[in-house]
Amino acid sequence: MALADTRFATRRRALAAKLAAKRIDSILVTSPIHVRYLSGFTGSNGALIVNKDLSAHICTDGRYTTQIAEEVPDIDALIERASATALLSRIEGPRRIAIEAAQTSLSEFESLSAALQEDVELIPVNGVVESIRLTKDNFELDRLRDVAALASQAFEDLLAAGEVAEGRSERQIAADLEYRMRMLGAERPSFDTIVASGPNSAKPHHGADDRIIQRGDLVTIDFGAHARGFNSDMTRTIVMGEAGEFASEIYDIVLRAQLAGVDAAYAGANLVDIDAACRNIIDAAGYGDYFVHSTGHGIGLEVHEAPSAAKTSTGVLEAGSTLTIEPGIYVPGKGGVRIEDTLIITNGAPEIITKVSKDLLVV
Amino acid sequence: MALADTRFATRRRALAAKLAAKRIDSILVTSPIHVRYLSGFTGSNGALIVNKDLSAHICTDGRYTTQIAEEVPDIDALIERASATALLSRIEGPRRIAIEAAQTSLSEFESLSAALQEDVELIPVNGVVESIRLTKDNFELDRLRDVAALASQAFEDLLAAGEVAEGRSERQIAADLEYRMRMLGAERPSFDTIVASGPNSAKPHHGADDRIIQRGDLVTIDFGAHARGFNSDMTRTIVMGEAGEFASEIYDIVLRAQLAGVDAAYAGANLVDIDAACRNIIDAAGYGDYFVHSTGHGIGLEVHEAPSAAKTSTGVLEAGSTLTIEPGIYVPGKGGVRIEDTLIITNGAPEIITKVSKDLLVV
Repeated sequence: MALADTRFATRRRALAAKLAAKRIDSILVTSPIHVRYLSGFTGSNGALIVNKDLSAHICTDGRYTTQIAEEVPDIDALIERASATALLSRIEGPRRIAIEAAQTSLSEFESLSAALQEDVELIPVNGVVESIRLTKDNFELDRLRDVAALASQAFEDLLAAGEVAEGRSERQIAADLEYRMRMLGAERPSFDTIVASGPNSAKPHHGADDRIIQRGDLVTIDFGAHARGFNSDMTRTIVMGEAGEFASEIYDIVLRAQLAGVDAAYAGANLVDIDAACRNIIDAAGYGDYFVHSTGHGIGLEVHEAPSAAKTSTGVLEAGSTLTIEPGIYVPGKGGVRIEDTLIITNGAPEIITKVSKDLLVV
Repeated sequence: MALADTRFATRRRALAAKLAAKRIDSILVTSPIHVRYLSGFTGSNGALIVNKDLSAHICTDGRYTTQIAEEVPDIDALIERASATALLSRIEGPRRIAIEAAQTSLSEFESLSAALQEDVELIPVNGVVESIRLTKDNFELDRLRDVAALASQAFEDLLAAGEVAEGRSERQIAADLEYRMRMLGAERPSFDTIVASGPNSAKPHHGADDRIIQRGDLVTIDFGAHARGFNSDMTRTIVMGEAGEFASEIYDIVLRAQLAGVDAAYAGANLVDIDAACRNIIDAAGYGDYFVHSTGHGIGLEVHEAPSAAKTSTGVLEAGSTLTIEPGIYVPGKGGVRIEDTLIITNGAPEIITKVSKDLLVV
């Protein structure tokens, strides 16, 4: 318990320091992900107030009475269904209370405003908790390594078992991979598994349907596991039977782009330059029009979170952030390739946590 | 195509009629579920404007150019990343444009407001699209029957295959059930599958962990499938080996409560009375303190949607709505039982779409 308490209290301390700079007395957090991040509570309904003196209040409903006492031993919990208004209505003014603008709907804002006592003011703020989440602590990095290792293992087991094979459907392969992740400890896929074969491989966001895998197909598998709050994300493209000229050509280009992106991803690099590192190689090979998405995104408690490496990105990559590098080429009617790793950013070479070979695999 | 066009246009017509009553010229819809409901577009990023004259505009980003043309043949699509502001900025005043208060965050509201031309006003509205979704059309009811049948089949196959068995873990059973749903056409579970055995069965929101199923256990399995946009939800509790006195007693009470809830669920019934129908039986048997949640909820594009049958519910049930009836008894340390069906409400007896026996099953 002591270790866990320290972790959440440390995050709340970082938050309080950010708020002090804005002359804020307290922050009300209601998004389940941020409540979890700052307190350890994993229930689906809850609210947390962190005060500038580091005292805190938490509330959930009757379903979670036992759970919140176990998960959050260091904050006394109030039990009430309308958790956010219940906490807020107990606070006396004068007080400036921050709320998260991106996680608070207009109707929630109205309910919260109606619950305020005299001289209590709500101040919408943007990205404060996200700015702390941007660089992961050691606990988070370990969880991210674990879930990426779990997903990587499931994928290698899938290949070793011969489950990516001609005559099987995209859906069967997705179901097998998801089953393997589940049995290795995932609670669910972190997003709908993509198994995009043949012409479907030219659609970046194809799901997995009843198409039967055929000899000569490119098969792009983009998948992740969600375990204990954290997500993984990786993509590999496989060739069935034999790689034709087109498949070999675009695989080679995408792989070179992906490796260039990984090389460019170090603390202090401009995010736009990481995107450019991938994009320039694909452009130079004449396939620029077929790389139709951005290069990468952070991952953690959410599958897509800051930072973002795109044509329009601003800002600089920080050590302790995560980033996917996932260039692709998609030629309608002919097929596509995407190769994606998740990286932990350091001052030197990044740590690749999706440790599956990127050599062209022909099965 | 013609049929699909009619369905979405009909929904947009119902929406326009509701807006006319509020002197609204147009509505901007940005939540993916509502964009899908009103247009057929299934992408993750999009915005839709419906005008009072029934003309409409839709926008998504470059990933979905082909998909939106196929899915929404009756509305010309604009392709731009910031879809909502792109649509909004093209509208000239004077115009009163509704936005959905529950689906619009404070930061989105700020971006939208900044994109407005002169004399264009944003009017936050609550529950307008939800009020149309409250009663399902025939297409929706068929999809809901299909996904409930798929999940029911998966559960019966799981039992027939002997996969709920002593010596297996909760996690294995959940993985097997999810695999079966996936292979029968589900894209994913509609929520994290619950397999709560022995003492875990006393926790209404237990997930599925490594506990090994033992003789004498109550095993509560609460699960659903998500397919083609729609969700299912059902719960059955099984006894392993033999039913002891406690298991038989609480199973009988919960089953009687569940049947009473089903009987009480007809068009025109007060929602609070449906909750009471279940609760009174459990109260009378002396277990009132152990029925710690509400009786039921609607289901459709979302797992939990209107209506709600709870102690505090107001309002009346309508024909064409869906409702779960899911009473339970949870005695800490001893175990629990929950039995849940999903109903389609009619003027007479409801249609139960989760057609799995509720007799006490001892395996």
